[in-house]
Amino acid sequence: MMSSKLNFVRNIAFLPQRMLSANATMQEPEAPKIVTKLPGPKSLDLIKELDAVQNSGAVQLFIDYEKSIGNYIVDVDGNTFLDIYSQIASVPLGYNHPAMIDVIKNPKNISTLVNRPALGVLPPRDFVQRLKSSLLVIAPQGLSEVQTMACGSCSVENALKAACFWYQQKKRGGESPSDEELESCLWNQSPGAPNLSVMSFSGGFHGRTFGALSCTHSKSIHKLDVPSFDWPIAPYPRYKYPLHEHKQENKAMDDRCIAVVEDLFEKYKKKDCPVAALIVEPIQGEGGDNHGSSYFFKEIRRVTRKNEAAFICDEVQTGCGATGRFWAHEHWNLQTPPDMVTFSKKMLSGGFFYKPEFRPDKPYRIFNTWLGDPAKMILLEAVIDVIFKQKLLDQIRDSGDYLLDNLIEIEKKYPQLVENARGKGTFAAIDFKTSELQSEGIKRLHKHGIHCGGSGNRTLRIRTTLTFSKKHVDVLIDRMNRAFYEM
Amino acid sequence: MMSSKLNFVRNIAFLPQRMLSANATMQEPEAPKIVTKLPGPKSLDLIKELDAVQNSGAVQLFIDYEKSIGNYIVDVDGNTFLDIYSQIASVPLGYNHPAMIDVIKNPKNISTLVNRPALGVLPPRDFVQRLKSSLLVIAPQGLSEVQTMACGSCSVENALKAACFWYQQKKRGGESPSDEELESCLWNQSPGAPNLSVMSFSGGFHGRTFGALSCTHSKSIHKLDVPSFDWPIAPYPRYKYPLHEHKQENKAMDDRCIAVVEDLFEKYKKKDCPVAALIVEPIQGEGGDNHGSSYFFKEIRRVTRKNEAAFICDEVQTGCGATGRFWAHEHWNLQTPPDMVTFSKKMLSGGFFYKPEFRPDKPYRIFNTWLGDPAKMILLEAVIDVIFKQKLLDQIRDSGDYLLDNLIEIEKKYPQLVENARGKGTFAAIDFKTSELQSEGIKRLHKHGIHCGGSGNRTLRIRTTLTFSKKHVDVLIDRMNRAFYEM
Repeated sequence: MMSSKLNFVRNIAFLPQRMLSANATMQEPEAPKIVTKLPGPKSLDLIKELDAVQNSGAVQLFIDYEKSIGNYIVDVDGNTFLDIYSQIASVPLGYNHPAMIDVIKNPKNISTLVNRPALGVLPPRDFVQRLKSSLLVIAPQGLSEVQTMACGSCSVENALKAACFWYQQKKRGGESPSDEELESCLWNQSPGAPNLSVMSFSGGFHGRTFGALSCTHSKSIHKLDVPSFDWPIAPYPRYKYPLHEHKQENKAMDDRCIAVVEDLFEKYKKKDCPVAALIVEPIQGEGGDNHGSSYFFKEIRRVTRKNEAAFICDEVQTGCGATGRFWAHEHWNLQTPPDMVTFSKKMLSGGFFYKPEFRPDKPYRIFNTWLGDPAKMILLEAVIDVIFKQKLLDQIRDSGDYLLDNLIEIEKKYPQLVENARGKGTFAAIDFKTSELQSEGIKRLHKHGIHCGGSGNRTLRIRTTLTFSKKHVDVLIDRMNRAFYEM
Repeated sequence: MMSSKLNFVRNIAFLPQRMLSANATMQEPEAPKIVTKLPGPKSLDLIKELDAVQNSGAVQLFIDYEKSIGNYIVDVDGNTFLDIYSQIASVPLGYNHPAMIDVIKNPKNISTLVNRPALGVLPPRDFVQRLKSSLLVIAPQGLSEVQTMACGSCSVENALKAACFWYQQKKRGGESPSDEELESCLWNQSPGAPNLSVMSFSGGFHGRTFGALSCTHSKSIHKLDVPSFDWPIAPYPRYKYPLHEHKQENKAMDDRCIAVVEDLFEKYKKKDCPVAALIVEPIQGEGGDNHGSSYFFKEIRRVTRKNEAAFICDEVQTGCGATGRFWAHEHWNLQTPPDMVTFSKKMLSGGFFYKPEFRPDKPYRIFNTWLGDPAKMILLEAVIDVIFKQKLLDQIRDSGDYLLDNLIEIEKKYPQLVENARGKGTFAAIDFKTSELQSEGIKRLHKHGIHCGGSGNRTLRIRTTLTFSKKHVDVLIDRMNRAFYEM
């Protein structure tokens, strides 16, 4: 089972990178190698140094990114890890990918890398062409317009704003805003700053700025002490696994969640704070790898349409191929697409796609100084090119299937430790039985050379790059066996 | 007056850049040159193309950044402008600066440019050293800690959050948060999501995400239709110019504003929504180049201390040298520094400096995937090096004085058109008599080869790079004379 006889998928070649290293070539290692306690002495020294100027409590290791390659990271103490966390799901192709290095080394790109423009007023000569060769190539079906942003939180914040604009414009029925609206908004008062709400889901994560954080309900530490909008929060399904053995219960779960969504629409209408938009993750990536079914999302689409609210699909973590489709929501086969799709992380640039009716009616409504960064778009262009030329989505589906089969075996082997293996593509997870086991399991995996992290309070979150292949699955499963055997 | 006999300040040499162009050398032009109607036909075509995929209403021109150099931008139609807007005040040294090009061409930096880390968990080997050689070199006095962010809005949002954490921690007096707090915050409810407010100023601008936007009160178009926190808004002084002729009135203006600030602290305490922080710009850069006096800010410092609220100085637009000091608040000679200083724009990286007592007590409270971008920090390091080695702050003070003298002459020459010339360093402005004249003036300046923009509803906002010298002032004033003469 652990062998890779079927590993017919072409692995990505990491070519010689003379510029990066004194060594003539750099190749992905065959396996992890841990040579010190973790964190090692050099990491510990640097953590202490960093702690003099900011809270360093979340820092795990200091990394030697020059030496990291493909799916392997190397820390400053010389420890080599297979990375299944990929910088909180934000590395598209692996470390020091040759196609990305080529972008940086190409003299034609120097100007883009040193002259960051105010994209909203003075875009570069090649901006439209860059949009066409990067973002528009992978635009979700039905969403023909795109707005770039710098990060995931800003993408969500601005998608929420675009939804509110759209909602209020409909309400005005084509009329201009009143003087009262124009004046009151400057003073943070309605009607100009209207009582509108955004529905989100328990366990959801959409970012940590004030608007996005009002839609985030993953962990207390993310939210404590921050003023929040009183916006509706619906339950997100929590399924029983394996799915095929619990069809009826899981369907009932979907129906219960949808019923609450419908109730909340009514409740907030009555509270005079109608729901302008509903925002949801295709898989709750921070809140515990909770999956929603196609049925659930079709119902969400139906209910949002019925209530004339925008349906925003937050694909910051699920987007860019990790689920085996470019966008996770493609798995649902919706008849009417979501109204907006937010992205960031592996996309390198933040932003959101939207339907034409969500285009703001006036300039400067969705706006900031930079509105994204062409320096990231040229890298994204290379990433998209590699994804298609090397058929990485096919590879991710294959490695994903292989990974899930193996996780199910692990689950059978260690039933006292883990359960609920699940995943789409390599966007996969397995639950530990308890929070304590989660901490212990992650720690032991680290010791065996797997860099990984948790989600929710007892889940192991697997977030690989798009070059993660069956041979990497084999290494991961081998190390999981070593770690779990000890427990 | 228009000659530059006194131009003893060394101009920045823009050295040959073989990589950038087929031409062997690139040198700043001597003067602007407009060869088409504005926007030119190529810009118009591109605007139309862009408009197929997003609202292009704010786009003025498409720019050929490869051909732009120093303080001059060249558009796709071959028009050359002296740029006194510098991408909404975000270009530190000018276009294609050789020191920044060197950073991109240095093979040692490739890894930093292709491997964007999750800085909060796996920082790069050289992260502490990079902080020490860039941000910590220019940390405002008394603010020994720094947190990087991706953009200005996120910097403000997170500074506000840090203030709320600090405020609530004080209230708990060292106790852990209660179970009720930990649970209620997940549901957007108090006491975990507390009723706290942030005081800001009429005419202020702090960004456009939901938290920052609740502190922004510049223009209706920035705010309309977006739900907002009901937070207190105080008046910002509006002085009469020239200052030395209106000392008494302006002092009275300061006192009236401060009295409202004090009242609002009381009012929001009684509303059970106490003010945790006050955020203010040293010069309102978006709201009309409104300046506050040292006296005003000393009073703000006194009142925030009295009320035990954080004093956040938003230097996103004023920071990084344009006022002739690295931070504009240095002009005030405060005895107690502000508690936090936010930055972005010319700093290339966003973030905020803060006093140690504003460090969050736990990790993951100020956190997101990227937490900034080392690819920007290596550019910032080069920028700071150039600022100090080439004594650019001295140069900016000289060019700024020279600019203000010349603006005062312009004001005398065209009293029916403009008034209230003011500035610190080259962060300068002049008011048109009306909004209509503002539009007309900016349009004519464009035609005469000055790329510029407005602030407020009748102000010409001057935002130069830090390499703007007296010879550039001469060109600007010459073109202003041509434009205003026609009006």
